[in-house]
Order: sequence, then structure tokens, then C-alpha cells
Amino acid sequence: MEGKEEDVRLGANKFSERQPLGTSAQSKDYKEAPPAPLFEPGELQSWSFWRAGIAEFMATFLFLYITVLTVMGVARSGNKCSSVGVQGIAWSFGGMIFALVYCTAGVSGGHINPAVTFGLFLARKLSLTRAIFYIVMQCLGAICGAGVVKGFQPSIFETKNGGANLVSHGYTKGDGLGAEIVGTFILVYTVFSATDAKRNARDSHVPILAPLPIGFAVFLVHLATIPITGTGINPARSLGAAIIYNRDHAWDDHWIFWVGPFIGAALAALYHQVVIRAIPFKSGS
Amino acid sequence: MEGKEEDVRLGANKFSERQPLGTSAQSKDYKEAPPAPLFEPGELQSWSFWRAGIAEFMATFLFLYITVLTVMGVARSGNKCSSVGVQGIAWSFGGMIFALVYCTAGVSGGHINPAVTFGLFLARKLSLTRAIFYIVMQCLGAICGAGVVKGFQPSIFETKNGGANLVSHGYTKGDGLGAEIVGTFILVYTVFSATDAKRNARDSHVPILAPLPIGFAVFLVHLATIPITGTGINPARSLGAAIIYNRDHAWDDHWIFWVGPFIGAALAALYHQVVIRAIPFKSGS
Amino acid sequence: MEGKEEDVRLGANKFSERQPLGTSAQSKDYKEAPPAPLFEPGELQSWSFWRAGIAEFMATFLFLYITVLTVMGVARSGNKCSSVGVQGIAWSFGGMIFALVYCTAGVSGGHINPAVTFGLFLARKLSLTRAIFYIVMQCLGAICGAGVVKGFQPSIFETKNGGANLVSHGYTKGDGLGAEIVGTFILVYTVFSATDAKRNARDSHVPILAPLPIGFAVFLVHLATIPITGTGINPARSLGAAIIYNRDHAWDDHWIFWVGPFIGAALAALYHQVVIRAIPFKSGS
Amino acid sequence: MEGKEEDVRLGANKFSERQPLGTSAQSKDYKEAPPAPLFEPGELQSWSFWRAGIAEFMATFLFLYITVLTVMGVARSGNKCSSVGVQGIAWSFGGMIFALVYCTAGVSGGHINPAVTFGLFLARKLSLTRAIFYIVMQCLGAICGAGVVKGFQPSIFETKNGGANLVSHGYTKGDGLGAEIVGTFILVYTVFSATDAKRNARDSHVPILAPLPIGFAVFLVHLATIPITGTGINPARSLGAAIIYNRDHAWDDHWIFWVGPFIGAALAALYHQVVIRAIPFKSGS
Repeated sequence: MEGKEEDVRLGANKFSERQPLGTSAQSKDYKEAPPAPLFEPGELQSWSFWRAGIAEFMATFLFLYITVLTVMGVARSGNKCSSVGVQGIAWSFGGMIFALVYCTAGVSGGHINPAVTFGLFLARKLSLTRAIFYIVMQCLGAICGAGVVKGFQPSIFETKNGGANLVSHGYTKGDGLGAEIVGTFILVYTVFSATDAKRNARDSHVPILAPLPIGFAVFLVHLATIPITGTGINPARSLGAAIIYNRDHAWDDHWIFWVGPFIGAALAALYHQVVIRAIPFKSGS
Repeated sequence: MEGKEEDVRLGANKFSERQPLGTSAQSKDYKEAPPAPLFEPGELQSWSFWRAGIAEFMATFLFLYITVLTVMGVARSGNKCSSVGVQGIAWSFGGMIFALVYCTAGVSGGHINPAVTFGLFLARKLSLTRAIFYIVMQCLGAICGAGVVKGFQPSIFETKNGGANLVSHGYTKGDGLGAEIVGTFILVYTVFSATDAKRNARDSHVPILAPLPIGFAVFLVHLATIPITGTGINPARSLGAAIIYNRDHAWDDHWIFWVGPFIGAALAALYHQVVIRAIPFKSGS
Repeated sequence: MEGKEEDVRLGANKFSERQPLGTSAQSKDYKEAPPAPLFEPGELQSWSFWRAGIAEFMATFLFLYITVLTVMGVARSGNKCSSVGVQGIAWSFGGMIFALVYCTAGVSGGHINPAVTFGLFLARKLSLTRAIFYIVMQCLGAICGAGVVKGFQPSIFETKNGGANLVSHGYTKGDGLGAEIVGTFILVYTVFSATDAKRNARDSHVPILAPLPIGFAVFLVHLATIPITGTGINPARSLGAAIIYNRDHAWDDHWIFWVGPFIGAALAALYHQVVIRAIPFKSGS
Repeated sequence: MEGKEEDVRLGANKFSERQPLGTSAQSKDYKEAPPAPLFEPGELQSWSFWRAGIAEFMATFLFLYITVLTVMGVARSGNKCSSVGVQGIAWSFGGMIFALVYCTAGVSGGHINPAVTFGLFLARKLSLTRAIFYIVMQCLGAICGAGVVKGFQPSIFETKNGGANLVSHGYTKGDGLGAEIVGTFILVYTVFSATDAKRNARDSHVPILAPLPIGFAVFLVHLATIPITGTGINPARSLGAAIIYNRDHAWDDHWIFWVGPFIGAALAALYHQVVIRAIPFKSGS
């Protein structure tokens, strides 16, 4: 096993000289952070823990506020050309994630999405306590954000679906589930790539640009799957919109927007840890 | 209190190893700048003070020129599809803020917005003298910028609202005020996150990308709230357009575009200083 | 010859002081990596080699999945204004390349395109074994990606061309070939500029932004040539869509989307190595 | 005078601690490059001089190719919604400048525009010989680029104006000239801000992002002034399109697209050197 690990490291270093974008000359040493414990007793006593939860609440609140408001603005416009259009909706989701990850990365890690929290938890990047706390705060923030949007124009909110995620006509529930799985895989895989300790040590451009590709991943998945499900890939966003909209046909499909993202996030964690980082094959270093 | 401050610092440092985007390995030391005095006598004698005001004037002039011209280009086009559309307007506002913050950050700090100046003043990042000087120069620049646009086609300018901010039909004044408050909160909170001395010291990617998320915040708020008020979140922009347009119904709502942004900026300053930085709880360090 | 090489180096250094964007003060030393051997025996035993192939497969799979799904979403929408539009398609292609290059650069170099692999092989940046392995994996990934999209709505996929590249009515095959050559030239030239060892050593901003201009190059070529061929500039993308669509008229033009990109990539490699780097004129240093 | 210069420097340094985006802690020393001589005899013997001209030719060629092709794609589409739209045209111009400045900055400085070359020449950043050589190569590149686009569909090129710049109906020649002056001012001012030796030394984020705001400036000016003149702000682009289109009404307005950009570039050089840098007030240091 030791030999295999060496092989991996050597192969990477040897090739990096000739690799297009593996550009750093100096190969800084890096140390894999030890896996986070399931329960970290000290955490609950630290202000930074609670502050992180508040930041997740606030970010998810602002995320739903801006995106659902943009969705409603497009929905209430008779002529799509006189609104920002479906592409504007995609920019709204992706752009908010970019700006909010940038703003909250230093405080809470900038998850703003239970699927991201779940994926990072599977990779043992945060404790179970923290993961549950984040997910609760994200859901509360999402409900408040959608609620404020409904407050602007309750009647239009109800007739125009209120930004709730639904499987569109012409697609099966299986299509919707598949779209959510692959979409969340793309997002969470981008998050893992952006936060890989090994890459950060080797390629200095990785952390600097990190919030940008993460936001772009969200934008791109929306471009592709808005016609299928309206695009969830974020259970808090789906839950917030569903609770405030609160009609039966929104709840019928709702499980898709939890099961899909969690499966996608788990696959991304698996792909990154096993294939890319080969962590299971490294003996106790 | 000392204990609490230590707790905050320790919590942050301890967690930063496992945090997705808190990526800097070396935790450089940083020193909170002392609060700016209300009046700084030397300032008025320094060329850099006057130059900063000129830069704010020029930036706000160019901001209004490009954005109002874009608004007029969309307004005069019969078919929205043969113009850059509402999404193009949002890009125009956000993109100009990105480019102008980038260009003037080193000269005046790149506010280009009385609400930003007000928020940073509340956090004691600049003196009262400087804040008032900036706001006056921003308003003058905005009036000139809108005036030049009117000069191109005065009659169309008048029939098409001249880019003035108004509460749209179907929304109450309260809706407009709320949209301005939350929109400005997003902008000013992004500005605070981008200029946080603590984050700058810890995460080297923060200052490098700063003008980009600030510009994106403006773009995103426009995507969401153009249907409600045309989006102000910048009292100088609203004042410049209103003065040049100068019709009663523009003045009726005008207070919203001062009160809303100032409340939003104050809340963002409060949120950042109290919740995120916990500055009031730090004893005199 | 030695004199000429000196001349090049001196000229560059001398001018760089006054050059707008050649901004680095410290002229770090750099060493051109030696050309990759045609066959590198050790490669096949290293996990990093196989992992790189898997990463290319996965990236091209996700690339086709998102882009072809976006194309189908626009195609099935009766009114183009109620979809993300042609511009949204261009963003989808360019944005995915940005995100995927960012994510896979550290693992495989982030080619995701046989033309890029071919261009870099001509410049001897990777071995023949690796080039062939990458191209095979890219084509397999593309086929799977397009196949999954067809799985969502097979009938619409067939009636709406399934994202296959075709020369549009009103253009000759020569036009299509020319558009593919110049388009791929722009992409591969951008890749070479982003990975130039000399520039990386001199201008520290080059590697940091690298995935962004590469993604933008793809976006821009799509803006210009979607009306002509639907834009290939990536033989794996064209092959994947053609195999899954599998109609005669798609196969008739198919050679254009291999010959064009390979010629474009070869010209870009030539331009960069001969004109920009003047490598043939440097004696054995 | 010495006192005044000191005052400027002190003021800037003193304030930078509290300034939002003047974020660098370490105030690196910088040295203003001496003004370039009008004629630099050695230049003509250096390969880097000729290579820079080739790079300018190639960049302007690719710039016109992509942008005019995009313009034609929108023009020939009956329904603007089924093309990339006017906003897509603006992205095409701005995005190409971003990508090309990124690619050629290290070779020629990445001007791609006679107005930029003229502005930098006025600030004595390059010799007269080099400026004239660049402008000639830029114009030749632009002619070739537009010519290749005409080759695709000559008849449509002629009926759809061929991307030539014209003052639109409803605007006077004075409007067109004013729009060109202010538009070029924005572009060249952004170029100066991005290449300011003082800012580069103080704020390390300036050079890293440089090509991005320059590209955005071009994008934004297009958003605003495409309805007025089609947006020139680049005499080579206007000349190339006019020569290949070659109709009387294109030539009637053609002087506007040389006089306007050159005045705008001169004003930007003046503003940056006199107001922002206060260079005339610094005694011989």
C-alpha cells in the first residue's frame, strides 16, 4: 500500500511539469487535515460555531429572496422578452452562490446548501453536530427568504408556482431524480475540487478562484435543467419554496429534491475521495 | 471579555483547517485599523483627499452615463428582443460597478454610492468630512451623467422615464422600501466582507477578487428588483436620474431611494461589526 | 543562433518595464520543460495515468450532459424567448469548459477535447500513449453524456437534431471547415498562452486566471459560429452527439468536425511555438 | 513642489489603512518607468519588436473575425430571439478583448486598438516607432478579419451593413462623436488603471484581474452605445469593417470613429497622468 501511495505521489509530481494547467513550480508540502470527529464537544461553546450557523441562515435567506424574486419577476411578465428571461433566472441562482460563498467562506465555509454540507460531512470535513446545525439553519433561512417574496405579491406568488420545484410535463419522476443527481454531482464535485488541500498546496490559483467555478456550476446546471424540474440541487431552496407555496402538487414531488441531491453529493464525495485522491488506498500516513 | 475574544479567534483558527474555503495555510497577523476620527484636520490639506473626491465624481458620472444610456436604449426599442433587454440593463449596472470599483479602489476606495459611504462611515472606516465630501461629489457626478444622456435625445428621455426610480404598478411603497433595504443590505454586506481586515490577512483570495463580487451583488439585486422599483440601492443614482427627469411622480417616491438604502447599509454595518466580527464584545485591544 | 535567442530574451525583458500588462517586477527564472517522449514506459504503471483518463472521461461526460441538455431545452421550446436562448447555449459550452478545466487541471491537465490534446501533443507536452488514451476516454465520455440526454426524451432528441453538428443551410462545407479551423485555433492558442512556462514565470497573473479565458474562448466561438455549424471545435463533442443521434445527414458532414479542429490545433501549436516562442530558432539550450 | 509630492504620497499611504479596497499591507517600493524615447534605435533589430507586431495583427484579425461574424449571425436572423441578440454582440466584443488581452499582454502589451496605443503613447509608455507599427498592424489585421467574414456570405454581408459603424437614425453626428469620446475614455481609463505602476506595487490584486475589467469596459460601452453608432471605440475595428463593406454611407461617418476614440484616449491619458498620478506636479524625482 505504501508503494502504491508513493506511486500516486510520484506520478503526479513527475507529470506536473508538463501538465498544461498544473502550473506551480514550487511544490509546497501539504498535510491532509485529520477527519473531523462526529461530535466535537468544544464546538458548542465557541461563538464561531453559532456565528457560522447565523451566517448560513442569513446567506440562505438572501439566496432565496433574490432568486425567488427573480423567478416571480419573469413569471408575472406576460412577454418573456420584457423580463430578464430564463437565462436571467440561471444567472440569479449561480451569481448569488458566487457572491454568498465569497462572503461567507471565511465564517462558515459557505455551504448555503444541505447537499454540500452532506457531501462535506461524508468526507469528514465537519462534525455531525455542525452538519445538522447548518442544515437546520439553511432550511430556516430558505423558508424566511421565500416568505418575504410571497409578502410582496401573495396572489401572483400562488398562481405562478412561487418558485417551487416540480417535475415538468413531459418528464417522468425518474427523469427529475436523475437530473437532480447529476446536477448536484457537478456542484459538489466542483466544491471538492476547490477545497482539495493537495491542490491548494500545489496550484496557487485554486483557492483564489474557488467561489467563481462553484457559482458557475450552479448557473450551468440551471441552464440545463430548469426545463425539467426548475432545478433544485439544493434541498433547502426546494423546501423553502414548497413550504411557502404549500400546494399538494408541490409536495408530491418534493422527495425528489432531497433524495436526488443527497445521492449526487454522496457520489461526488465518493468520486473525489476514492478516484481522485485515492484516500482509501493510502496506508496510515 | 478577553476570554470571549480569545474564544472567537481560537474557534476560527481551529476550524479553518477543515473549512472548505478558508484556505490560507499561513495565518498572517493582522491589526484592526483604529476607527477614523470624525474630523481629520490634515485631510483637507492633502491632495489625495481632493483627488479622491474627483475620482468619486468621475466614477459616478460614468456610472450614470453608461447605465441610463443602456436603459434608454432598451426603452426606445419597440421590440425588447432587438435590444440588450432587461438582463442587459442589469449587466450594465453590475458591470460598471465592477469596472469602476476596480479602477478607483486605489484612489478613493471606490464607493460610487452614498449608501456604501454611509455604511463604511458607520463602521468608522472614514471621517465624517470625507463621507460628506464623497456623497456630494457622487450626487454631482450622477446629475451630470444623467444630464449628458438626456442631451442625446431629450424627447425620448422624457417619455420613457429617463431611468428614474419609481415604485411599479402592483407594488406598494412599503414593497419598494423593503426591496431597497434588502438590496442595499446585500451590496453593503458584500463590501464589508471584501474589505474585512481579518479575512484579508487570513484568506489571500479575498482582496484579489473583491471588485467582482461587489459588481455581481449589484447585478443580482437588479435582476430581482428591476420589476419592483427599477432598483435604486444607490441614492446618487436615484437623485441624478430624478433631477434630470424632474417630473412630479418621480419625486413622490424619491424618499424611498434615500431612506431604504441608508437603512440597508446601516443594517449591513451592524450585522458585520456585531455578528460577524463581534467587535463590541472585544475588550480594548 | 545563440545571439538571436539572447536578442529575444533581452528584447522582452527590456520592453517589459513599459508594457501595459507585463506587470511582474521580479523576473523569475524559468526552465522550459524537456519535450515529452513519444512513449513513456513508466506511465502505464502509475495510478495517476489511469486516474487522468478517468477524469477526462468524467469531464467530457458532464460536458456533453449539460450542453446537449441545454441545447434540447432551447430546441423543444416553441418560443425561444421562454428558454435560455442561443446565448444561453453559448454560455453552457463556455461555462462548462471553465468549470471543468478548473476542476480537472490538477488531475489530467483538463483537456476535455481531442483537439486540445492533439495540439499539446504536437508541442510535445505529453506522450503519444497519453494523448491516445485521453482521446479515447474523451470520446467514450462524450458518447455516454449524449446518451443520457437522449434517455430523457428520445423522441424530441431525434426530431430536434440531438445537438449534432451540421453545416447549416446557406453555408458550404468549405465555410463549415473554415469556421472550425479558426474557431479551434482561437481555443488552442488561448490554451497555449495560458500554459506558457515563460509567461507563468514572468507574469504571475497568467496561471491564476487560466481556466477563465479558456472558457471564454469557447463561449465566444459559439457566439460567432453556432449559426454556421452549431460549433464543434471539439471532435469528442461532435462524435458523441453524432453517434447518439445517428442519422445519415449528421454523418455526411462529420469529417469536418475532426479535420477542422485538428488543423486549427496544429496551426495554433505552430503559431505559438514558432512565432511567439521562437523555439526552432533557439540552439540547443 | 517636492513638498506637494510628499503630501500626495503621505496622504495616500496614510489613508490606505482605512480604505475599503486598498488592501495590501506591505507597501512595496515602486519606480516609475522612465518615459519611452520617441525613437528607440535598437528596437527595429529585436525579434520581440516584430513579434509584437505580428501578435497585434493576429489579435485584431481574430477580434474582427469573431465579432463581425456574431453581428452577421444576429443580423441575418429574422427573429432576434433565435439569435444571441444584441446582448450577445456586446459579449462578443468585450469577451474577445478579455481573452486577447490575456493572451497577448506578455507579447505586445495587448493593445488590439489604435486608440489604446495612442493613449499609451501620449503617456510615453511606448516609442513613436512602435506605436505607428502597432497601429498599422492592427488596421491590417482588422481588414483581414472582416474580409474573411465577408467570404462566408458576401450577399448577406452587403445587405446587412457588414458590421460597419454608422450613426443611427435619430442621432446627430455630434451625438455619435460624443458617444465615441466618452466610450473610449472609459476603455482607456480602465487600461491606465490596470497598468499603473504605483497601484501594481501597492495592491497586488490589480495586475491579476487586469484583462477582466478591460474586457468588461468594452462590453459595457457596447451595451450602452450599440443603439447610437454600433459602437466603435476602436478605429481599427471601424476601418476594417468600412473597407470590406465599402459603401458611401459608411465612409461619410467614418471620421467620427477615428477622431472620437483619439480624443477620448487623450482625455483619459490626461486625466490619469494629471489628476490621478499628479505627474506634472512632481519635481524631477
